[in-house]
Amino acid sequence: MSISTEIADFITKATIDDFSTESIETAKIAILDCMACLIAGSTEPIAQLLCDQAKHNGGNPHSSVFTKNFKTSSQEAALINGAMAHALDYDDVTEGIKCHPSVFLVPVALALGEYINASGKDILLSYLVGFETACSIGSGLSESYFDDLGWHPTGPLGALGSASTASSILKLNQEQASVALALAASQASGLRQNFGTMTKPFHPGLACKNGVLGAQLASAGFTADQNIFEGRFGFLRAFSGGTDYSPANILESLKKTNHMMESGVEIKKYPCCGSSHLSLDAIFKIIESHNIDPNAIEKITSWVDFDPPRSLVHYNPTSALEGKFSMQYLLAAALLDNQIGLNSFSDEKINRAEIQNLMGKVIMTRHPGNEGKQSWMEGFHKVDIKLTNGDIISNTAERHYSGALRGATVEQVISKFEDCASIAFDTSLSHKMKDMILDLENLEDINQFIKLF
Amino acid sequence: MSISTEIADFITKATIDDFSTESIETAKIAILDCMACLIAGSTEPIAQLLCDQAKHNGGNPHSSVFTKNFKTSSQEAALINGAMAHALDYDDVTEGIKCHPSVFLVPVALALGEYINASGKDILLSYLVGFETACSIGSGLSESYFDDLGWHPTGPLGALGSASTASSILKLNQEQASVALALAASQASGLRQNFGTMTKPFHPGLACKNGVLGAQLASAGFTADQNIFEGRFGFLRAFSGGTDYSPANILESLKKTNHMMESGVEIKKYPCCGSSHLSLDAIFKIIESHNIDPNAIEKITSWVDFDPPRSLVHYNPTSALEGKFSMQYLLAAALLDNQIGLNSFSDEKINRAEIQNLMGKVIMTRHPGNEGKQSWMEGFHKVDIKLTNGDIISNTAERHYSGALRGATVEQVISKFEDCASIAFDTSLSHKMKDMILDLENLEDINQFIKLF
Repeated sequence: MSISTEIADFITKATIDDFSTESIETAKIAILDCMACLIAGSTEPIAQLLCDQAKHNGGNPHSSVFTKNFKTSSQEAALINGAMAHALDYDDVTEGIKCHPSVFLVPVALALGEYINASGKDILLSYLVGFETACSIGSGLSESYFDDLGWHPTGPLGALGSASTASSILKLNQEQASVALALAASQASGLRQNFGTMTKPFHPGLACKNGVLGAQLASAGFTADQNIFEGRFGFLRAFSGGTDYSPANILESLKKTNHMMESGVEIKKYPCCGSSHLSLDAIFKIIESHNIDPNAIEKITSWVDFDPPRSLVHYNPTSALEGKFSMQYLLAAALLDNQIGLNSFSDEKINRAEIQNLMGKVIMTRHPGNEGKQSWMEGFHKVDIKLTNGDIISNTAERHYSGALRGATVEQVISKFEDCASIAFDTSLSHKMKDMILDLENLEDINQFIKLF
Repeated sequence: MSISTEIADFITKATIDDFSTESIETAKIAILDCMACLIAGSTEPIAQLLCDQAKHNGGNPHSSVFTKNFKTSSQEAALINGAMAHALDYDDVTEGIKCHPSVFLVPVALALGEYINASGKDILLSYLVGFETACSIGSGLSESYFDDLGWHPTGPLGALGSASTASSILKLNQEQASVALALAASQASGLRQNFGTMTKPFHPGLACKNGVLGAQLASAGFTADQNIFEGRFGFLRAFSGGTDYSPANILESLKKTNHMMESGVEIKKYPCCGSSHLSLDAIFKIIESHNIDPNAIEKITSWVDFDPPRSLVHYNPTSALEGKFSMQYLLAAALLDNQIGLNSFSDEKINRAEIQNLMGKVIMTRHPGNEGKQSWMEGFHKVDIKLTNGDIISNTAERHYSGALRGATVEQVISKFEDCASIAFDTSLSHKMKDMILDLENLEDINQFIKLF
């Protein structure tokens, strides 16, 4: 059997009983969180542009574009929903493949699930199947794929995960699912160079569309190669830059690793660059037990690991988008506002005199002695607040390395959903939505949820 | 100015007067040839599958799916037309980027041209602009992109060429055209591993769609990076495998090279793998002046260059598709039937006893002394027919290395078009189509041509 046949075998044979209670519970929380991000992202300019484009093209009303009161083809709906869910960089991450998993899984499961009246259990199964498959395929790619060559990991790997979810929800047979993977591999794309533009959230949207199209064409009898992973001119070699890829890793990973437990789903509590989150956790711990007068602060030092200096590139931000990528703004705002939420990001908020003043006192620096270690290896931030009287108040926050749900508690995700849903829905409706997702395995038809939008 | 800005500058400022008469004449012939391939390819199974899929999705009737009597969105029409035009591997090639150029240029120019009622001159200009741009961008990619990593060169480069043509026909401004290129770069894909399946012709179809979508979103105000070629995490690095790419080559190539004259458009006279064509030319020259009794043949030797042994992999073909990739079948059929045309490829034709007998006498072997040289470097085939009486009759055919139109004369392309068009249209209609394309610079509205379908 080829690798894609073995993956197809996994996709077509998996049942919800193959997954642990913790995995299933986490999938529900991840779906809830993804919908929160989607609703909040639906007011971003990219949403309007993509909806206008879809309406210009036209399309049969098969699947809903959430919060936008129209339906279009499942492919196009998956594209728009995927892009909206990633638009704020507020959605989850998974460690093993440095990817945003839910934005290329949830929109696909819902768009196709709506069209075929899938059950809540089928949605959960297709999410988990896509998650495990994407993580397994990722383990066959070179390190360069993730860090060096320029691929946005969520793009190409997202197309494969999305094709797996689509194959699961459409109940393709083994050969069709294998074709769907090969078709997705030949559409996979997404470049990091487009970070900081609308094209970044477009990548998971495109991945969703590629997966849906791949599965639909495969189901109709389209043909594609059955050795797309291990083949000499296949996915692994092309996207790995020609070296350091390992087809064997995919199968070993698929068979031996429970990715939902080992990589987990890391939820963002704050709608800004993930590289700031541990420092924010640390400063909020300080604020909880100290009432600090901003005028009494001499210096705030954030000791960080590998990633933040590469990502938090704005030291003197003056716009909302820059603020999302600025440790200076985020720590200053946390201290002055006692929270970081959607309302933290407006040009006005960032240009307050007291913020601009406090930002000048924030220093971000790497933990000494860890040079050369890779992302995710250090896993903690420490924040020191030095007062003018010489006192230093410190606290530390660590990255969670175990369990399926990471970075936030169930309660925190629920309140994040309620915060985001309040943009478009009244409280009773958003409660109903939340309750349905939290009881997804008992939902007979996903349309009972979707029609609430 | 960034490279994409410079390309956008070229796209937005070029006029038809910037191109030589020979370039313009060749563009017309290439468009005629592409339509021939499209019409002939429209009866392949992939055409039906893609049309069914488009009808399932629905779409506003903006652009025609040729020969299929329906219109759909310009994106989807460009996809289907692009895939149909490549379905038979009968379409043109250009030397510099080892690509099939017309299948990612013509469907885009026509789909968008139909929607905006473009003139014939605009169609020609957008073709030439896309051609020069794709060839220039190709000169920045590593050798590995073309030969080693697994990319189907027509796929990723096709997306960029298609975006250039789309930007030209939609008359985008400089900034929009630059965004269109960056958006196309983040969608670009296509793997060689899928050769020999429907996914191969799907690649240029996808490229067409990516270019149209990129240009449409750019025109609506979408954002993307302005340094997508030279950027550290951009197109050249990712698709080159991380090394041996050169951003500077793109601009030098764009400014100094007339690709239409230096790489040319190589037309296929025979609907089969291009690697057999020089040997077919050579054997037809022999047949012209000799009446050879097949029973008097002891051996046919085809002396070839780099590519044929890699591509003509079927020595004992028994099916139509295998016959397209078999020097044994092609030379035997040329000798017995005195022609190679669309009707040469049926399982029945290939399994004739006299063909199967003659195929056993055909040997393909590389010119000695040229080992290690790359594709396109040797550029000639020699065919020897040894008779049982000891006579050897030889002839040689060389690849054309100069001029814009290569591999076939204008008259040969016209009769290829008439042969292909006869599948779907009567003679008077196909004459009218041909005449319009050959006078394209004087066509006021491309719809005058399109409505003939």
